[in-house]
Amino acid sequence: MARKKYKIGVDIGGTKMLAVLLDGEKILDEYMLATPKDSVEHFVIMLNALLEPLLERAKKDRAIVVGIGIGIAGIIDLKIKKVLKSPNIPIIEGSSFVFQLEKKYILPVFIDNDANCFLRAEAKIGSARKYDNIFGITIGTGIGSAWWFNGNIYLGADGSAGEFGHNIIDFKSKLSLEKSYQDLTQRNTLNMSNEAYRGDPLAIRSFEEFGEILGLSLANLINTINPEIIVMGGGGSESADLFLPTSKKMIKEYAHSESGKKTKILISKLDKQAGAIGAAMLIE
Amino acid sequence: MARKKYKIGVDIGGTKMLAVLLDGEKILDEYMLATPKDSVEHFVIMLNALLEPLLERAKKDRAIVVGIGIGIAGIIDLKIKKVLKSPNIPIIEGSSFVFQLEKKYILPVFIDNDANCFLRAEAKIGSARKYDNIFGITIGTGIGSAWWFNGNIYLGADGSAGEFGHNIIDFKSKLSLEKSYQDLTQRNTLNMSNEAYRGDPLAIRSFEEFGEILGLSLANLINTINPEIIVMGGGGSESADLFLPTSKKMIKEYAHSESGKKTKILISKLDKQAGAIGAAMLIE
Repeated sequence: MARKKYKIGVDIGGTKMLAVLLDGEKILDEYMLATPKDSVEHFVIMLNALLEPLLERAKKDRAIVVGIGIGIAGIIDLKIKKVLKSPNIPIIEGSSFVFQLEKKYILPVFIDNDANCFLRAEAKIGSARKYDNIFGITIGTGIGSAWWFNGNIYLGADGSAGEFGHNIIDFKSKLSLEKSYQDLTQRNTLNMSNEAYRGDPLAIRSFEEFGEILGLSLANLINTINPEIIVMGGGGSESADLFLPTSKKMIKEYAHSESGKKTKILISKLDKQAGAIGAAMLIE
Repeated sequence: MARKKYKIGVDIGGTKMLAVLLDGEKILDEYMLATPKDSVEHFVIMLNALLEPLLERAKKDRAIVVGIGIGIAGIIDLKIKKVLKSPNIPIIEGSSFVFQLEKKYILPVFIDNDANCFLRAEAKIGSARKYDNIFGITIGTGIGSAWWFNGNIYLGADGSAGEFGHNIIDFKSKLSLEKSYQDLTQRNTLNMSNEAYRGDPLAIRSFEEFGEILGLSLANLINTINPEIIVMGGGGSESADLFLPTSKKMIKEYAHSESGKKTKILISKLDKQAGAIGAAMLIE
């Protein structure tokens, strides 16, 4: 009997790293660890700690692991397999950890931007699979974005498209969308969304204000590229009900075309695993 | 001998309408009139006044006019040949003037957004012809935009992409890029750019402020779609030296990727005729 072929997908965000073992679209096993930020050596050790139990499980199943796909928050050079810029995980900028993994496990390893991975999964098997012009946004430690168009992730002239989260939305303060979300979630040590769900008016108002900023940013995006649909993921999308109604009002007011005003926003159905699943899709 | 085939291209902006008669890429004749804003009947009369001397000239040359292409500032439905929305020429919204022209002259008539026409000409025979991922921006009565990608104008999910000028750049005041330019040019009855060229510090500062707003908008655009190059046209680009150096500084500061910071901005070489030439390119 032919041996089964498994894939490993890893999603590395500014806070957590998640690895999944896949048999086709089925998740067989998964592990999560905090993203080390102190040194690249520590980062590689923890990444191995995440991969090894999955490789063990494959071995136990007598399956072949055909490759490892990794999604990382940052600007990635797909060809040289390096992270060029990662404001939330700066220690991995320029690191050759991909080659270290390839050498250690004798497996092909691929990397891509984490929002690209998220959107690839959503477009191929997730909530947006019926569409072909999809803007994806991930709300987490940072705000990532990606655009699926004509059956592929759009990369831009040199691979640095999808930095929507860094867009400036306030001329005077030079506030970016990402910064406004970080201000919200890091304002105090308490969990702001819990405060809002408990009914704290200040917390509720803070989420609405972020909703306004996000809505204006998305209205600008709709005016510029007019996507068929927007799909949202990342940990922050779990409290979308606190900000998305306000965002939708802003889109209705500030998107210029009648059809643009009606652009649908879906929440990811693949949940926390979307990024890791999309990373595994990097493997042929 | 086979008769020559001419094309007519018309560029209809918020202030002026320009029509050109073309033999291939060569402009044989051109006429310009103010855009009527009082009624659609007056608009059609003046459009005919613009077309007739060109049709006469073709007749005199014993040439066949194969069609008329029209570029208009606004959101256009290419299939039903109607203007859906045009903030600067609202009288033509929903009008069937294209069919009136087709009936009157027994010629095929095509319409498209004016910024799309401008960029089509620039991408095919103008300053951006060596590139294939080009963002075009026209600065005139309104601010238009278009994007050339993979050998075609990108239309968006339902044809309403390219409304970049309506993007909000200031969260508190809800100031759009277009509004900020209109505030600048309509601030008084004197010509602001003349004032600036004469050395008036207030006028110079006003252009620099617009340059900042434009630069931030373009940095956001670069973060989102990462074009190879930006090409700028329209009457307002004639005083680009008053605002573009400031815009370039803003792009260098607020574009996120190293390559994005270096995105080149070209000024149109086809000059005032770019839009009309690109409109004529709508004819097969």
